[in-house]
Amino acid sequence: MKPYDTVIKGGLVAAPGRDLICDVAIQEGRIAALGQDLHGDVEIDADGQIVTPGGIDAHCHIDQLTSTGARTADTFASASLAAAHGGTTTMMPFAVQHRGTSLARAVTDYRERMGDTSHIDCAFHLIVTDPTDETLREDIPALAAEGFTSVKIYLSYDALRLDDRAALDVLAVCRAERLMPMVHAESHDMIAWLTERMVQHGYDDVRYFPRSRPIVAERDATHHAISMSDLIDTPLLIVHVSSIDALAEIRRAQAAGRPILAETCPQYLLLADTDLDRPDFGGAKYCCSPPLRDAAHQQALWQGLADGSIAVCSSDHSAFFFDGPSGKKRNGDNAPFTRIPYGLPGLEPRMPLMFSAGVMAGRLSLQTFTEVTATRPAEIYGLGASKGRIAPGYDADLVIWDPQSRARMSVDLLHDGIDYTPYEGIELVGRPTQTLLRGQSLCRDGEWQAVEPTGRLLACERPVPADRPAPAGAHYDVTENRFLDDF
Amino acid sequence: MKPYDTVIKGGLVAAPGRDLICDVAIQEGRIAALGQDLHGDVEIDADGQIVTPGGIDAHCHIDQLTSTGARTADTFASASLAAAHGGTTTMMPFAVQHRGTSLARAVTDYRERMGDTSHIDCAFHLIVTDPTDETLREDIPALAAEGFTSVKIYLSYDALRLDDRAALDVLAVCRAERLMPMVHAESHDMIAWLTERMVQHGYDDVRYFPRSRPIVAERDATHHAISMSDLIDTPLLIVHVSSIDALAEIRRAQAAGRPILAETCPQYLLLADTDLDRPDFGGAKYCCSPPLRDAAHQQALWQGLADGSIAVCSSDHSAFFFDGPSGKKRNGDNAPFTRIPYGLPGLEPRMPLMFSAGVMAGRLSLQTFTEVTATRPAEIYGLGASKGRIAPGYDADLVIWDPQSRARMSVDLLHDGIDYTPYEGIELVGRPTQTLLRGQSLCRDGEWQAVEPTGRLLACERPVPADRPAPAGAHYDVTENRFLDDF
Amino acid sequence: MKPYDTVIKGGLVAAPGRDLICDVAIQEGRIAALGQDLHGDVEIDADGQIVTPGGIDAHCHIDQLTSTGARTADTFASASLAAAHGGTTTMMPFAVQHRGTSLARAVTDYRERMGDTSHIDCAFHLIVTDPTDETLREDIPALAAEGFTSVKIYLSYDALRLDDRAALDVLAVCRAERLMPMVHAESHDMIAWLTERMVQHGYDDVRYFPRSRPIVAERDATHHAISMSDLIDTPLLIVHVSSIDALAEIRRAQAAGRPILAETCPQYLLLADTDLDRPDFGGAKYCCSPPLRDAAHQQALWQGLADGSIAVCSSDHSAFFFDGPSGKKRNGDNAPFTRIPYGLPGLEPRMPLMFSAGVMAGRLSLQTFTEVTATRPAEIYGLGASKGRIAPGYDADLVIWDPQSRARMSVDLLHDGIDYTPYEGIELVGRPTQTLLRGQSLCRDGEWQAVEPTGRLLACERPVPADRPAPAGAHYDVTENRFLDDF
Amino acid sequence: MKPYDTVIKGGLVAAPGRDLICDVAIQEGRIAALGQDLHGDVEIDADGQIVTPGGIDAHCHIDQLTSTGARTADTFASASLAAAHGGTTTMMPFAVQHRGTSLARAVTDYRERMGDTSHIDCAFHLIVTDPTDETLREDIPALAAEGFTSVKIYLSYDALRLDDRAALDVLAVCRAERLMPMVHAESHDMIAWLTERMVQHGYDDVRYFPRSRPIVAERDATHHAISMSDLIDTPLLIVHVSSIDALAEIRRAQAAGRPILAETCPQYLLLADTDLDRPDFGGAKYCCSPPLRDAAHQQALWQGLADGSIAVCSSDHSAFFFDGPSGKKRNGDNAPFTRIPYGLPGLEPRMPLMFSAGVMAGRLSLQTFTEVTATRPAEIYGLGASKGRIAPGYDADLVIWDPQSRARMSVDLLHDGIDYTPYEGIELVGRPTQTLLRGQSLCRDGEWQAVEPTGRLLACERPVPADRPAPAGAHYDVTENRFLDDF
Repeated sequence: MKPYDTVIKGGLVAAPGRDLICDVAIQEGRIAALGQDLHGDVEIDADGQIVTPGGIDAHCHIDQLTSTGARTADTFASASLAAAHGGTTTMMPFAVQHRGTSLARAVTDYRERMGDTSHIDCAFHLIVTDPTDETLREDIPALAAEGFTSVKIYLSYDALRLDDRAALDVLAVCRAERLMPMVHAESHDMIAWLTERMVQHGYDDVRYFPRSRPIVAERDATHHAISMSDLIDTPLLIVHVSSIDALAEIRRAQAAGRPILAETCPQYLLLADTDLDRPDFGGAKYCCSPPLRDAAHQQALWQGLADGSIAVCSSDHSAFFFDGPSGKKRNGDNAPFTRIPYGLPGLEPRMPLMFSAGVMAGRLSLQTFTEVTATRPAEIYGLGASKGRIAPGYDADLVIWDPQSRARMSVDLLHDGIDYTPYEGIELVGRPTQTLLRGQSLCRDGEWQAVEPTGRLLACERPVPADRPAPAGAHYDVTENRFLDDF
Repeated sequence: MKPYDTVIKGGLVAAPGRDLICDVAIQEGRIAALGQDLHGDVEIDADGQIVTPGGIDAHCHIDQLTSTGARTADTFASASLAAAHGGTTTMMPFAVQHRGTSLARAVTDYRERMGDTSHIDCAFHLIVTDPTDETLREDIPALAAEGFTSVKIYLSYDALRLDDRAALDVLAVCRAERLMPMVHAESHDMIAWLTERMVQHGYDDVRYFPRSRPIVAERDATHHAISMSDLIDTPLLIVHVSSIDALAEIRRAQAAGRPILAETCPQYLLLADTDLDRPDFGGAKYCCSPPLRDAAHQQALWQGLADGSIAVCSSDHSAFFFDGPSGKKRNGDNAPFTRIPYGLPGLEPRMPLMFSAGVMAGRLSLQTFTEVTATRPAEIYGLGASKGRIAPGYDADLVIWDPQSRARMSVDLLHDGIDYTPYEGIELVGRPTQTLLRGQSLCRDGEWQAVEPTGRLLACERPVPADRPAPAGAHYDVTENRFLDDF
Repeated sequence: MKPYDTVIKGGLVAAPGRDLICDVAIQEGRIAALGQDLHGDVEIDADGQIVTPGGIDAHCHIDQLTSTGARTADTFASASLAAAHGGTTTMMPFAVQHRGTSLARAVTDYRERMGDTSHIDCAFHLIVTDPTDETLREDIPALAAEGFTSVKIYLSYDALRLDDRAALDVLAVCRAERLMPMVHAESHDMIAWLTERMVQHGYDDVRYFPRSRPIVAERDATHHAISMSDLIDTPLLIVHVSSIDALAEIRRAQAAGRPILAETCPQYLLLADTDLDRPDFGGAKYCCSPPLRDAAHQQALWQGLADGSIAVCSSDHSAFFFDGPSGKKRNGDNAPFTRIPYGLPGLEPRMPLMFSAGVMAGRLSLQTFTEVTATRPAEIYGLGASKGRIAPGYDADLVIWDPQSRARMSVDLLHDGIDYTPYEGIELVGRPTQTLLRGQSLCRDGEWQAVEPTGRLLACERPVPADRPAPAGAHYDVTENRFLDDF
Repeated sequence: MKPYDTVIKGGLVAAPGRDLICDVAIQEGRIAALGQDLHGDVEIDADGQIVTPGGIDAHCHIDQLTSTGARTADTFASASLAAAHGGTTTMMPFAVQHRGTSLARAVTDYRERMGDTSHIDCAFHLIVTDPTDETLREDIPALAAEGFTSVKIYLSYDALRLDDRAALDVLAVCRAERLMPMVHAESHDMIAWLTERMVQHGYDDVRYFPRSRPIVAERDATHHAISMSDLIDTPLLIVHVSSIDALAEIRRAQAAGRPILAETCPQYLLLADTDLDRPDFGGAKYCCSPPLRDAAHQQALWQGLADGSIAVCSSDHSAFFFDGPSGKKRNGDNAPFTRIPYGLPGLEPRMPLMFSAGVMAGRLSLQTFTEVTATRPAEIYGLGASKGRIAPGYDADLVIWDPQSRARMSVDLLHDGIDYTPYEGIELVGRPTQTLLRGQSLCRDGEWQAVEPTGRLLACERPVPADRPAPAGAHYDVTENRFLDDF
């Protein structure tokens, strides 16, 4: 047996199921073996270091025109470079169908925007806003066959949301095609109705923003999304869960054996509604939806990650400059909250924040950190056969962490070019020292090592197994259009 | 002290809180005293009999054009006569606003239809389908001042349902005016989407009807109605609860201290989805919405009445002939379920059925029977000061029951003139032998005793107390348009 | 019709189910009628006043040798006089069997202690500590036939507690005889084990007392008592519930349809564990078991009373002087908490405290106040046919309250002769101005009006109905000693 | 790099977290690498086969004198040989302290019985029945230091059970020493009381046995064990959970963040109370405690394994001959159920049954099968660093399965020498074809390959981490004997 291409020696490896001190051998971009006394042409000493799978950011908006009309601030090139610095090796942005346009065309356009400019691997979720017959019967099946196997729908936002019939149409196609539906669950009309009243009566300052999207609207839409999943009988993932109440609905469904999945984001774990009170329009930097909640909700979400009821921690990266014409202040530095672009930059800091505030602070085990930042997103979105684990045959997407490192989060530390970070000042314990994509070192000790972008657009498997058991009781099979227990 | 006008002597009186053997004295149409050894100019011997408050049927459709275009089969005269035979002394039908028309006008029209033809007292609920500014700001407040203090909205049916913003507008007015909102809670689009598929694939026979309105649609809308109540902070009553799942949502809200009330109906307690399988289009006789469920749901609803989580048992009387041009067969005797008028006749049998299957069968105490058929509906809809109790000062609306009587429910036994009863063949243990309205005997031993109709249109109090405590936490007061904890 | 003996005119009467402004007529010691325009030889003007049933204190220790060897501080004479001043007209103390002695004899002795000295009516609960064959097969059935129909057992205290087999024996007899078992539910060994450790390591100051009887011990024993009730299939009442956790177990059982009842006491609603920190051994005044908890528990218990999951509010009056040889300081004024007599005086203040902090403060409706202080205890313990309601035929035990009165609770205000009250300084809004026992005025405006004690020893009905439905599923009927579904 | 000792080539490997098709390299008895294209001096072709970790049977009674006075039917030699045939490579029997004897001595004796006769590795749990000072302060700590780090206590059985204080003493030592307590949770006195009555009234046939140990007794003791864990603040594992109700208590604790673990056994998944009705005293073969329940419970337990609320599937192997002087009929073939030795043989069939009825029947994924039969028991009992996973550094304890194999379970198929199997006739889909212990093949295709017994007595790590976070709220630390929040 000859030496492997590369061997990472002696690190504490977040191997599936248990942390091991062992060597990780890489051959032709893949993990060839986990073992002891493995040798390679290149050997990386990881003694005292921690080795995890490269992060998978399953929810980020890159180079996207948002529903509020602003364009997000980064390109595939800039975003992927920043992501790699933070230990993320796969990102999953959204190819958005705008109403009146073709979904297939949206994907083509988005592929072109990506081109060969990404430094890390990518996979696209589809956002469906206009489920025409063409979209449902032609585009989605064709795109699924090409490897676009997750579909996001919105229950909120005028420009994006689907009414119930349209949502059910999309879910029914997801069921037939075995795709993973993702739902932004806030009840649009409750929010719109309340916002209108608040604005009319002078409560339009950004500090009132969280109250315009109250927890009950998130809980209500979460229950509703679960009901639609029940009717159609399809798995479903609720994105960016922000509150105890929404989590409680999800847990109830899970306890009843329903295939409901949940995601949260670092901002809901580390930032709070009080951040919206920051002076000098600083609250605008914290304006995202669902809005930030208070400490009790943060704690519950950490618990949800720890006990598995929340499967995924993504960034929901949606970056706008604070200043500038397309930024938070685009409608003035005293704009009402209805005229501020919603979204926070978080692609690069996600992994370091979760490592520091999660693993090093004792809230999450290294295993759970790995699961929620890499393993589970890979599995849920059809990349589970090649991404998200340190196991033979898997892509050698790896991050090496120095648990001794100390830093303070700052805009100067980051590589995304945005003029602020909402996490400014948070202390970081432990940091990524090296990121490898398919065996190739992208950056090491803060130095960028890759010359050319080598990120690929990944084709995802269909995430829902073909042999999922049928639910109990009389049930209309919307794929076969018949009753399961017909008589 | 001189003799009272009338004294009912020696019956077992379903007095508030406990059954008592005592006399009930009536003076000038009101209960003057409960006591022993009371004497009257007229004395009714009730030895061995049971005396309860006259029934209040808080949910019935009389002389109404329904959403499916059919006209219900009875007039105020015929309905009230039948109701009185069954032991009901107050009925609460609906004054329906049709879209594009005025709510005030709808009430005026409906008053005219009632005229002086009712043999029992009446109060109208308002059905709002078109919440224009005029409706919200002028008509509802004015009608509330006149004593129309409950407002029903629909989350289902094309012709009736409100979208969420409209529903919130109505709830906000209810809060400001202290009215009781009633909600028909089935998720319209889930039902419409599923029905369309079912019909398209040949599942349009009436026996499939229950599956077209699945339990998840009722549960979903029930949760949603509760969410809207949470947002607005108003009490709310869910009408005709038919399933364990909807009841569970209601109980969760009640356990959290939310003022959510529920109603069910005899058909959901005594009839089942299997009745829809009856031959010769017989299933059409059992076509109502929400649809009939199975025995487990029946049992849970009995339990809900017994433990108080369901406060009201109404009939949801909505009578159509089986035969005839405006009846169940109006679109043919093999019509798809989408073209059958929905609704069951139940005004007259409600009280005897609940007395027999509830009290005499041991499912409900006499106290609970009294509460759910009379006391609680009176309280909930603003009649609690004069109706629904056998207590001094209350209207002498009374029913005397012979618990020894035996009969079998049959269309021939009833007085409503409809050509069928869905309860045909059910054995009745115990029957009303005399019904008194404000001290006057309407019928006795099956004989009609009243000469002229004396039923009044009642003005209801505002059912929601002015001093309801504010909910905990930050909250936008939609009446005052300010935050309760403003800062 | 001739005038009644006495009529209370024009008060707001807490009549069953609803407050009414009406007259209450009394004839020969009983309520003869509720009505309007009633006339009496004596007329009491209650305009602007509130009329409630006389309080029933279903849990008080009078003239009793306690398990810690101290004798409680009052006699039937002194206790009943104080109780009447507070608006209580029936008290239910305990006839305690001491181990090695006869239960029948204990009752005989206790009857003698009461003699004809009580100013209010009494009924005795039995405390069984030594369930010998004679106790179980002879004494309890014979005493039940005489009207002693409730049996208390302890799961804690060395001198009182039953092991599980003995407890099951008692419950089985209660089932056969249709008696109401009452359970003091704290897990003895958990407490004893912890206390021993705490004392050994110097945590024996009275301020540590609450921690020696932790909530988990109450929750555990509550669950265990419910389990025993499940096995035997008998109703059961948990006395003096003090914590959210115990209440949650009770609610779970109730939601499952189990006949589990609960009681709490004013001290758990109004006092807190921080009271144990009072200087100068003042904490000893607040030493009772279960111990006082914190504000969150208080709030939950108020909610439990309001929503009916707690049926009874008793005093658990167990009075010791602070000073003196048989008092709190009997083992010194720095005695470890293990050597302080447990118990608080509360017989007289119970009703005024609940009226003020419950009704007048808006936590309980007048109806609920009446239910938990009078109606429900009467029903639960077999006095429901004559006590606890203002209804024709019931004993004319009545309290008239002046809601305008203001006072501050103080030892000087009370009539029990104890040298402290744990409620010192609490503001009272509303006070009883007159107490009537079976139509006779005992005290009015603070003046004692009765000459001779007229309190009776009441015979209670068997509280459990003979026709309780059998539980579902295979079940061993411990009364019949056979399986209900034998095969 | 030179060839490994052995490589298993091309099987579907139940690697941690995900099944992989890869090679498994073994060097010096340990797994050296997982990878592709690995080579060995010996190569085992596993194409089309499944490779799992060797089974760990964490609950079996071997060569033990039981509480009913019978001796179990097998020796370490016979049991380990049978176990290996079934794919089990580590067994964890019990060193039982008998009352009045020394725990240390019990371990010494048991080590001697094992001697060098076991064909598979062993670790002993300690059973403490007499927690004297010597036991608690000397023996347990000393034995823990030697690697005996789990302690089982009984809440049932006269000869074994601890009272609460003794149980708390043991739990407190477990907490201090970081040992895993295991609890047999059935409420002794409830069972004894009921059994006495049943026997007295003629219900002593074996078919009544399940009813003598009702579900409520298991639920009650489960709650109680959890309460004790709460008080002491120690993790705790409930052995052989048999009912929905006990599982519900466990899930409640887990949902509250409490470290409560659960085990079930194949008999509770595959056999039912109706098996006790078998003729010719055949029910005695199914007599174990807790008793077998019905199908609804089976289904719930499968669900508990699938969703992780039950962590371990052990055999609770406790083998008696049906015939013979020490067998089920030792007190006659019509013995009352109180005189039948309780326990079923299950060591050998456990893995094949779970593979067939779990994995092949679609109830459990291969991953979950691996976790509950090997990974989780290893972790929970301190063997997680060397056993239970297919990962580099781990003992090469492996089973190779042929999923195509078909057989019918039969006593003739088994190697334990017992004269019956309760699983007779159950169809097996998939069977183990080869078992390796630390790299050495024990048996292959039914042929025994090992010459000498090489099983070791394993030293277990302390299973409870030293840095477990403290619980919230005021709490007495029973290890430090102080309050965590002292003031």
